[in-house]
Amino acid sequence: MNKITVGILGATGSVGQRFIELLSNHPYFEVAELGASGRSAGKKYSEAVNWIMQTPLPTEYGNLVVKECIPNFNSKIIFSGLDASVAGEIETQFAESGYFVISNARNHRFDIDVPLIIPEINYDHLELLHVQKYKGGIITNPNCSTIGLAMALKPLYDNFGLEAVNVVTMQAISGAGYPGVASLDILDNVIPYIGGEEEKLETEPTKILGKLHLSKTDSDKTNTGEIELTNFKISAQCNRVPVIDGHTESVQVKLKSKPTLEEIKKVWREFKSLPQKLNLPSAPIKPIHYYEEDNYPQAKIHRNLENGMGVAIGRLRECALFDYKFTILSHNTIRGAAGGTILIAELMQAKGYFTK
Amino acid sequence: MNKITVGILGATGSVGQRFIELLSNHPYFEVAELGASGRSAGKKYSEAVNWIMQTPLPTEYGNLVVKECIPNFNSKIIFSGLDASVAGEIETQFAESGYFVISNARNHRFDIDVPLIIPEINYDHLELLHVQKYKGGIITNPNCSTIGLAMALKPLYDNFGLEAVNVVTMQAISGAGYPGVASLDILDNVIPYIGGEEEKLETEPTKILGKLHLSKTDSDKTNTGEIELTNFKISAQCNRVPVIDGHTESVQVKLKSKPTLEEIKKVWREFKSLPQKLNLPSAPIKPIHYYEEDNYPQAKIHRNLENGMGVAIGRLRECALFDYKFTILSHNTIRGAAGGTILIAELMQAKGYFTK
Amino acid sequence: MNKITVGILGATGSVGQRFIELLSNHPYFEVAELGASGRSAGKKYSEAVNWIMQTPLPTEYGNLVVKECIPNFNSKIIFSGLDASVAGEIETQFAESGYFVISNARNHRFDIDVPLIIPEINYDHLELLHVQKYKGGIITNPNCSTIGLAMALKPLYDNFGLEAVNVVTMQAISGAGYPGVASLDILDNVIPYIGGEEEKLETEPTKILGKLHLSKTDSDKTNTGEIELTNFKISAQCNRVPVIDGHTESVQVKLKSKPTLEEIKKVWREFKSLPQKLNLPSAPIKPIHYYEEDNYPQAKIHRNLENGMGVAIGRLRECALFDYKFTILSHNTIRGAAGGTILIAELMQAKGYFTK
Amino acid sequence: MNKITVGILGATGSVGQRFIELLSNHPYFEVAELGASGRSAGKKYSEAVNWIMQTPLPTEYGNLVVKECIPNFNSKIIFSGLDASVAGEIETQFAESGYFVISNARNHRFDIDVPLIIPEINYDHLELLHVQKYKGGIITNPNCSTIGLAMALKPLYDNFGLEAVNVVTMQAISGAGYPGVASLDILDNVIPYIGGEEEKLETEPTKILGKLHLSKTDSDKTNTGEIELTNFKISAQCNRVPVIDGHTESVQVKLKSKPTLEEIKKVWREFKSLPQKLNLPSAPIKPIHYYEEDNYPQAKIHRNLENGMGVAIGRLRECALFDYKFTILSHNTIRGAAGGTILIAELMQAKGYFTK
Repeated sequence: MNKITVGILGATGSVGQRFIELLSNHPYFEVAELGASGRSAGKKYSEAVNWIMQTPLPTEYGNLVVKECIPNFNSKIIFSGLDASVAGEIETQFAESGYFVISNARNHRFDIDVPLIIPEINYDHLELLHVQKYKGGIITNPNCSTIGLAMALKPLYDNFGLEAVNVVTMQAISGAGYPGVASLDILDNVIPYIGGEEEKLETEPTKILGKLHLSKTDSDKTNTGEIELTNFKISAQCNRVPVIDGHTESVQVKLKSKPTLEEIKKVWREFKSLPQKLNLPSAPIKPIHYYEEDNYPQAKIHRNLENGMGVAIGRLRECALFDYKFTILSHNTIRGAAGGTILIAELMQAKGYFTK
Repeated sequence: MNKITVGILGATGSVGQRFIELLSNHPYFEVAELGASGRSAGKKYSEAVNWIMQTPLPTEYGNLVVKECIPNFNSKIIFSGLDASVAGEIETQFAESGYFVISNARNHRFDIDVPLIIPEINYDHLELLHVQKYKGGIITNPNCSTIGLAMALKPLYDNFGLEAVNVVTMQAISGAGYPGVASLDILDNVIPYIGGEEEKLETEPTKILGKLHLSKTDSDKTNTGEIELTNFKISAQCNRVPVIDGHTESVQVKLKSKPTLEEIKKVWREFKSLPQKLNLPSAPIKPIHYYEEDNYPQAKIHRNLENGMGVAIGRLRECALFDYKFTILSHNTIRGAAGGTILIAELMQAKGYFTK
Repeated sequence: MNKITVGILGATGSVGQRFIELLSNHPYFEVAELGASGRSAGKKYSEAVNWIMQTPLPTEYGNLVVKECIPNFNSKIIFSGLDASVAGEIETQFAESGYFVISNARNHRFDIDVPLIIPEINYDHLELLHVQKYKGGIITNPNCSTIGLAMALKPLYDNFGLEAVNVVTMQAISGAGYPGVASLDILDNVIPYIGGEEEKLETEPTKILGKLHLSKTDSDKTNTGEIELTNFKISAQCNRVPVIDGHTESVQVKLKSKPTLEEIKKVWREFKSLPQKLNLPSAPIKPIHYYEEDNYPQAKIHRNLENGMGVAIGRLRECALFDYKFTILSHNTIRGAAGGTILIAELMQAKGYFTK
Repeated sequence: MNKITVGILGATGSVGQRFIELLSNHPYFEVAELGASGRSAGKKYSEAVNWIMQTPLPTEYGNLVVKECIPNFNSKIIFSGLDASVAGEIETQFAESGYFVISNARNHRFDIDVPLIIPEINYDHLELLHVQKYKGGIITNPNCSTIGLAMALKPLYDNFGLEAVNVVTMQAISGAGYPGVASLDILDNVIPYIGGEEEKLETEPTKILGKLHLSKTDSDKTNTGEIELTNFKISAQCNRVPVIDGHTESVQVKLKSKPTLEEIKKVWREFKSLPQKLNLPSAPIKPIHYYEEDNYPQAKIHRNLENGMGVAIGRLRECALFDYKFTILSHNTIRGAAGGTILIAELMQAKGYFTK
């Protein structure tokens, strides 16, 4: 089978590097074009990048010449690891020019016709692409801290109903990109603030778990669609900790009908969805792993679970203020960024979306 | 003025080392005796200890010969940094033999006649000593994660009333003693569990902020006393992070009457108590410092505030689920352990308790 | 092909855990028995171990019941990750009872009839087994800091001759086992001392690079053999740094005939040996990778090179006091311990040594 | 006594912040003016700075308005913590305009008429100021990694003669300024390269330990002077490690006449110089502390020795390739930067240089 060539925007950044690492030897996709800022454009990628992944840069990518981020790519599928300061406009330009842009940036996440996708949760929201205004399309991946939380909430929401969610995060430095957090700021320290993060965490799950409404009319051209947000409340506090990869979240939930501890563990452990049924290459076999050990989950031990695509949960117990509390761990730059984006692309490929 | 000699139990541990560091050149007290386990007893302290403080061991203490922890000390005042596995019985023996034991261990904290003291909050609870069953006395210092929280809650409780408190901690490794947490466990990691910690954090504030009742009878001998626990609810989740000193806490509160943001900042900033009035040597000038900076308080920057005796608070803001949320930072082995204990001793000295 | 069952001694320690991780799905060997101290014996492995690897414990091993370290194993091949405090005697007992013990412990490394093996360097030293006094055999793996150094020296020694070697190490915490280094000792710190390490580093390369002499007589039984140590001098200084895996070494060499920079890079890059020719499962394709980047090699980037079995070298440059200086990085618990040991076993299997 | 007002250039950087921290309550000097880049100029210092010191910013400095770095300061004495990319020209401008600039930047260190001063070692080199071409003057402080080394070498050089020095450094992140090293680059890592650092370490000691020659003529105006560099050889390898403050150095020396271990310890322990005789406020009582403990010196324990102005040495032992090897630890931003600079200023004040 011929692989589909893809381009990467923001290829020198930390999310871009993860794309390259994860797409190396991918069964569907082949990285053919790398875009970055004007400062890097024209250089060999190996010279433009400060490679910070834990596996050496594959030679075949090191020799690619970096392009500018303008819509003259040959590949129709574009993974965007662009920084939010520039992502909005560039992604729009690509989408208007007919590219499918799957983005990690926050800019378009709440656009009314842009789906915010976690493939296991709301794959049906991809149908928004049918009503999207672009020649191509924009599909967004949620914020890194949202993904682990939304995955844990999905089976609870479906089975028991959600009334309130409280979350305190301890987030890895890789979530801030590169160079990102200065070592003098974070070594031997906790920083109790990540700009804009709490707002994302308090809103994104309400779109992801929301209900798609498509208004069909006689003519395709006038179809519209939107996501009805859920109405449970979320309060988030976000902290940065000296961990390289893996966001830890201390979570509390109030449910509409209170199940037993075992009922919750069961719905988590049995949770499977379309990516598992389709056997997508990046799909975890089990999206959620629940651990009984007192001191699990841990960033260092569980972030690479299911090649970084699994979500680890543990410490489920009664709460004096909510119904239950528990701890979530997920890999912020794999499941929470590049890997999640790739899984969206795999799903789109499997469902024929790229031939829209 | 002649200094009062004191003894230290558990002198080779991390709390014991802090006692020595902090009592060096103390205006009231002079460390004269060091007690540790049988393994260390008989050795010079400098040979028995693996000194881990950030200032070198003062020579005068290095030459002291370590004693066993049996009640044959010459000093009447004993600071206990003993591990909870042995503290209970040893402290009882000392108290029965007429010593005043001021302890960091958890063992006696909830004994009905033992005060659990934070000098700025409940100095009046020291009166329990008048009804305590020992020839000497046992006075306890709360758990390191409790102290910062209780200090932040006190002005809220007094001024606005408390209904519910939610707290997620990110605790420093020094809180686990020495050798404590293995480096392989915590470097590049968060451990979402500290044995027994959540229980302490959910109960200790209710005794500290509780009301003392002394039942006076005609005869001194039949006096009894107890602390009426408060009835607001606390939910705690405790995490260990790779920080050397300084516990960070993400806190949410529901108050009986909701004040403005500014009213809360005002009661924190103006909070002063007896140790400040008495101008005790270890008392912070201002027990609570509130910071307006978005990303404050931070362990690395604020743990040494007021020589480690201040509590730093920041990020007060509205909460979608409670009334307000904010972040606390306090030094876990100074304010939260050795320093807090020394402040108790200073208060007892100033109020004449050692001459009971 | 039926796999050969093997046993692991010291299975709960950090080297033992690496054995299990690396032998999971091994084409030759299958872990069937786990031995540990009396404290663990009789428990399920998952209950006895504090698993610290970065991939979760495979379930099939978690259910094995831990055995005592006595020579009643069914498997003939034994990997020893025992601590040096007990390894000497236990390994002797197993070898006397007919087991082949491949050990990471230091105890038997300088026994006159025990080979100290790095498969790429001195595979011929395995012939010492023919004259070894045991019914089974003891084969040792060098110290973790020796392996990277010896690998870098081998092509220099063979091609240009060695007169002097100076090395300063910056060693990972995993080299100290588990619990090993206390986090309070190493976070934000360098410890300029590792007990016994400098002695190992100054002597082991002289045996590994030494020449095997076998004295053949008429009767097999009286054969003797020994290794003639090399006579270049080594000076070592060993430091512990807050790195999880990967020993970095700053090295200087004085050579008998001084080559050019390019000649040295060439002999490193072209270095291949028997494990590569035999295509052994754990053998790196290229044992040595030389990097031209100014700031390479780095622990975080290169420790997993060739699945942790490659040695990364960089920064080769002229030296004002020696001929050249350069930096080495190798994975201390894979190449430098469990992985190196497994490679020895693979070589022994391929060469028929286990049927001695 | 009226304090002398001083200005700080590069006030928002990490060295500048240390100046402010260390000059708070200084007996001679009072910080009156803060200079930084155009980006910060005009703002209140508290708004321009990202304060990263471990003690909170003193309020009186937070309110100062940041000035541009042009020679319109009212203070005659200027401490420069400027980055080398801009320091050269700015410092020249100030010196030409009559200011005394005491600089941490590398730019002017090897100017023929600029002294490179460590007050305990070569205070006499200040006499170069008499022949310097500026209306004011430029005095430089060595590189942070040079200072500890040069201090350790001075008593050896004077008493036993030096033939060769080999040094491998493990340097703290604070040496790279702020934001400096990205946390993703250094957490769980060693970086074996610091641009330009090895060259500094191989040359600066030869000027600092060099001999001053002043050619006196009849007329003051034609006086010239220069420093004769020493002729022992130095080889340096510089590594960055995840330590906040404190450079550790593994050192080897070949001496002209080989003393005993005890003779070396004695000259280190007894070393005192002019700053000690003059009892300068920032002078350590003992510039060098030698420790007998196997595992000393350590960054976390000894960097604050003598308020960060002492140099800790340990592990002196025979070396197979040189005469002796040992380990040095000194605080890179106190002794090795801001503190060292302040000590120079104190010495100049005490010796009347500011009235040139």
